[in-house]
Amino acid sequence: MKNRLERQLDFALEIDKEKNIFRQTHLSGHGRNENDAEHAWHMAVMAYLLREYSNEPVDISKVMIMCLIHDIVEIDAGDTYAYDEVNIKTQKEREDAAKERIFSILPDDQKAEFTALFDEFEEAQTAESKFAHSLDNLQPLLLNSSNGGSDWQEHGVTAGKVYERQGKTQLGSEALFEVTDKIIKKYIESGVLKP
Amino acid sequence: MKNRLERQLDFALEIDKEKNIFRQTHLSGHGRNENDAEHAWHMAVMAYLLREYSNEPVDISKVMIMCLIHDIVEIDAGDTYAYDEVNIKTQKEREDAAKERIFSILPDDQKAEFTALFDEFEEAQTAESKFAHSLDNLQPLLLNSSNGGSDWQEHGVTAGKVYERQGKTQLGSEALFEVTDKIIKKYIESGVLKP
Repeated sequence: MKNRLERQLDFALEIDKEKNIFRQTHLSGHGRNENDAEHAWHMAVMAYLLREYSNEPVDISKVMIMCLIHDIVEIDAGDTYAYDEVNIKTQKEREDAAKERIFSILPDDQKAEFTALFDEFEEAQTAESKFAHSLDNLQPLLLNSSNGGSDWQEHGVTAGKVYERQGKTQLGSEALFEVTDKIIKKYIESGVLKP
Repeated sequence: MKNRLERQLDFALEIDKEKNIFRQTHLSGHGRNENDAEHAWHMAVMAYLLREYSNEPVDISKVMIMCLIHDIVEIDAGDTYAYDEVNIKTQKEREDAAKERIFSILPDDQKAEFTALFDEFEEAQTAESKFAHSLDNLQPLLLNSSNGGSDWQEHGVTAGKVYERQGKTQLGSEALFEVTDKIIKKYIESGVLKP
């Protein structure tokens, strides 16, 4: 039987694999595709940096750890692009199996804690999880906008689809949605986003 | 003049460049070199996961944000390998210039806040910064150990040099130093680390 610290370090090593899960978003400067670990890091820094814009007061350590772990299940389940309507149908099933396998590496109390944090993020009902979702939306928007909207162009995404996802930003932050809305409108006007 | 949120988003975009700063550490599974953003993400998750092992009680949100931003200066200053005796001499000067440029993108109050967090980490005198340093040491050790110590072998690092750096882990966590010490001894015994 492994002791507590051994199980925690096994988990720490397991999640290293998240650095090999690549997303559809590209780094600024028309860079390579971003990976999940980089995305999570960026979201967590932005959560701290922009915490004043949360609609409701938040426990910032909870927002940060939620941002940091919300994509760990993609080690097994892979990244599902926000605008991929086929794979989104099986996403929950794949991610639930991954959640059970990966968090079971942890001691029982931390398995429960990390699972609860993951579920809270997914359900997006609390102040912390709603704000974390605002960052999950804003972070790739910021990169994509810096690259002239090329990620949307590559996938032929329409303005309606972008609003369907990005509109939820306002549940966590009206102020961050306001700036999001300005960016989307700019790309509709320039013709990058089809109405 | 840019408004507050514009400056914050400019900063958020600027730090994206940290994903292009590569370190000497390799990912598990004999993977590619790790970048600073991935390292910071991994450290911050490990800080939360292993917080019970800090020698002193810590404000975990402070430890996490310190971990997340401690390498931002390397966007300008580059990564200095812990065992590179030549470039370590100019490291502080290069990093101070970078700190001033990068944190000046922020609104004044946040420039002061982030600079203070960065300096607190560097000085390593508080409970939070000492624990953050333990993670800054343990995270690459964990990866390197999973790869049979190949990062040490590549650079011909001696056991004495490893203890010089990793020994400081005990200032933040006796328990994490204990496991560090076991790993180092294993690699001395196997001959990977020269005495």
